Amino acid sequence: MSSQPEHPTLLIPGPIEFDDAVLHSMSHYSESHVGPAFVATFGEALSMLRKLFQTTDPASQPFVISGSGTLGWDLVAANLVEAGDDVLVLSTGYFSDGFADCLGVYGAKVTELKAPVGQRPQLPEIERALSEKKYKVLTVTHVDTSTGVLSELKKLSELVHRVSPDTLIIVDGVCSVACEEIAFDEWKLDGVVTASQKAIGCPAGLSISMFSGRAIETLKNRKTPPASYFGSLKNWLPIMQNYEAKKPSYFATPSPQLVHALHTALTQILARPVAERFAKHKEASDRIKKAIGDLGLKQLAGNPDDQAHGMTAIYLPENVKGTELLPKLGSRGVVFAGGIHKEVAAKYIRFGHMGVSVLNPERGDIEKALKALEDGLAECGYQKA
Amino acid sequence: MSSQPEHPTLLIPGPIEFDDAVLHSMSHYSESHVGPAFVATFGEALSMLRKLFQTTDPASQPFVISGSGTLGWDLVAANLVEAGDDVLVLSTGYFSDGFADCLGVYGAKVTELKAPVGQRPQLPEIERALSEKKYKVLTVTHVDTSTGVLSELKKLSELVHRVSPDTLIIVDGVCSVACEEIAFDEWKLDGVVTASQKAIGCPAGLSISMFSGRAIETLKNRKTPPASYFGSLKNWLPIMQNYEAKKPSYFATPSPQLVHALHTALTQILARPVAERFAKHKEASDRIKKAIGDLGLKQLAGNPDDQAHGMTAIYLPENVKGTELLPKLGSRGVVFAGGIHKEVAAKYIRFGHMGVSVLNPERGDIEKALKALEDGLAECGYQKA
Repeated sequence: MSSQPEHPTLLIPGPIEFDDAVLHSMSHYSESHVGPAFVATFGEALSMLRKLFQTTDPASQPFVISGSGTLGWDLVAANLVEAGDDVLVLSTGYFSDGFADCLGVYGAKVTELKAPVGQRPQLPEIERALSEKKYKVLTVTHVDTSTGVLSELKKLSELVHRVSPDTLIIVDGVCSVACEEIAFDEWKLDGVVTASQKAIGCPAGLSISMFSGRAIETLKNRKTPPASYFGSLKNWLPIMQNYEAKKPSYFATPSPQLVHALHTALTQILARPVAERFAKHKEASDRIKKAIGDLGLKQLAGNPDDQAHGMTAIYLPENVKGTELLPKLGSRGVVFAGGIHKEVAAKYIRFGHMGVSVLNPERGDIEKALKALEDGLAECGYQKA
Repeated sequence: MSSQPEHPTLLIPGPIEFDDAVLHSMSHYSESHVGPAFVATFGEALSMLRKLFQTTDPASQPFVISGSGTLGWDLVAANLVEAGDDVLVLSTGYFSDGFADCLGVYGAKVTELKAPVGQRPQLPEIERALSEKKYKVLTVTHVDTSTGVLSELKKLSELVHRVSPDTLIIVDGVCSVACEEIAFDEWKLDGVVTASQKAIGCPAGLSISMFSGRAIETLKNRKTPPASYFGSLKNWLPIMQNYEAKKPSYFATPSPQLVHALHTALTQILARPVAERFAKHKEASDRIKKAIGDLGLKQLAGNPDDQAHGMTAIYLPENVKGTELLPKLGSRGVVFAGGIHKEVAAKYIRFGHMGVSVLNPERGDIEKALKALEDGLAECGYQKA
């Protein structure tokens, strides 16, 4: 039984439904951000992030900074890129394009490889692009929340290391960390930026990232200073190292309450093998995608290999509008999100299935959502062809 | 009776002790950041900020963005300053210098008027500086948390408007908003940046700011784009306007829980006239400063007119170390902060007295702190000369 008041079940691709204990940690009494109790909590949270990202390389460096997930793009653009540097952006939707825009603000020369809606750039064209120019950084959106397209990181990284070994591989993992497998060391990634409010299951307000030793060296070897002050990883690096070593230090005040909630969420995540967590998200996703197919609906991500496991972007039937269907789901206690990809925004809806909603089946969230979707569509006059 | 577990009373210059209802709001169940319920909450919080800042000018614009207070410096530097612009920084300590560093990162040509420790730059020298060069922006730290020095905004603004009327007046109000009077319209300020965890009484994690119509025009008339993506006020402006108009829109995901807590804190603040709130902080501060003087201790801010009302920076007696005294306060259930100003860090301690600790005298926080200070000093062998 949840201690939360009754409320609509939030099944958008983030924020997700939160566990009671995590929400309880949000109301932790006030503590000094440099006091020993909080320093220990923050340090443990950083160490736990290493396990979630499956990195044991001591050169890897986690960062937890107050901000939205979007701040992660600025961290990459202001610290690993200098004005005039070439960056290759693999685009699978709205959020990949946002990352490209952010890189441009900091002076990067961005080349975007854009896939058609619902697809991802293919390895041969990526190889061609990498052969034509030397890129300092390549960015890939692991799951683009606008399309539900999943990128394949392992083979991509193998390709980059073979064709352009000096290029840093940076992953936008906002909608993938803690629901899709990420083997940071094994896949030789250089950076993964994410946020707290998706599969990690902690309320919004934290930018969470992991950078490789190689990325930290790139930061240290910059010719120009980082192009941000609050977002300078040079400013944050000693602070994160001190917190993890349980030593107090100060650059800007972190949010003790959010860090407590993150600590609780990570403790819950690591109580079981992370492989089991990824498998459970895949199982739930498979079940959801089958049910959606059985309703006669199509996904934006047409190819099963390209489909994310923490969300599903669903095309609406011909004569059903999202503005008509979403309120019908709402009246059944289920909140889905509308479309956000400019080219097709009005033509689809998004169903997020991450965290407690898939890991605690006794909540019944997924069944409730699928039933609401079926009944809501029927009320809109839809019949399967 | 508080519903919080027993814990040391946090009397550092932020984060402060929080009210039960505010902490309870931190564990609000998950909501969509674009759903009508949360949009209304966010919109109301923005409207309440106008009242706290005492602005009725519809051209004034509040912003609430996930981040630390430090992010406010970047908002000013990345949006109101372009590379090569001259900025005059009035320095009253560590945080004024930090603001200057941040401005430099974004290409500002910074001139710093530095006062000796515990003092503030005087009006005649500010007038001289303003006459020598045309500054696009002047920054002033209302209360520098490193020294407890209070700046006088009203007369400063009159001077700037008389001598250099085109110069934007930007206030770092991190340690002053909601405990020191700020009459945004009447004093013709152009920007005040602050954070949630000090006198506003909401946990850390929100950068809160108010900009004038003139500042927004400066933003709109930039020759170059804002030098930040997450921190671009151009990106946030329509979002804030939409939230306040109760219309959903999206740039980066805000923290619904922190915004709920802010809403609760602002509702509590505005339940009484703000003038009364400022007067109560002043009364408590006067009482504390008298008690500290009675103990034979001196403040960093020697001149009573220069003393902040939400904190006190106290010189340690000759033979007492902060590293010795602070644990003795800790064992009495009181947390003070150490010194942070580079020139005198080891020679003083800081006592924060903001929010519920001064507004709810039945808590007894201030008496407990003064008693702990007296007894702790005695245990360190201090006797009043």
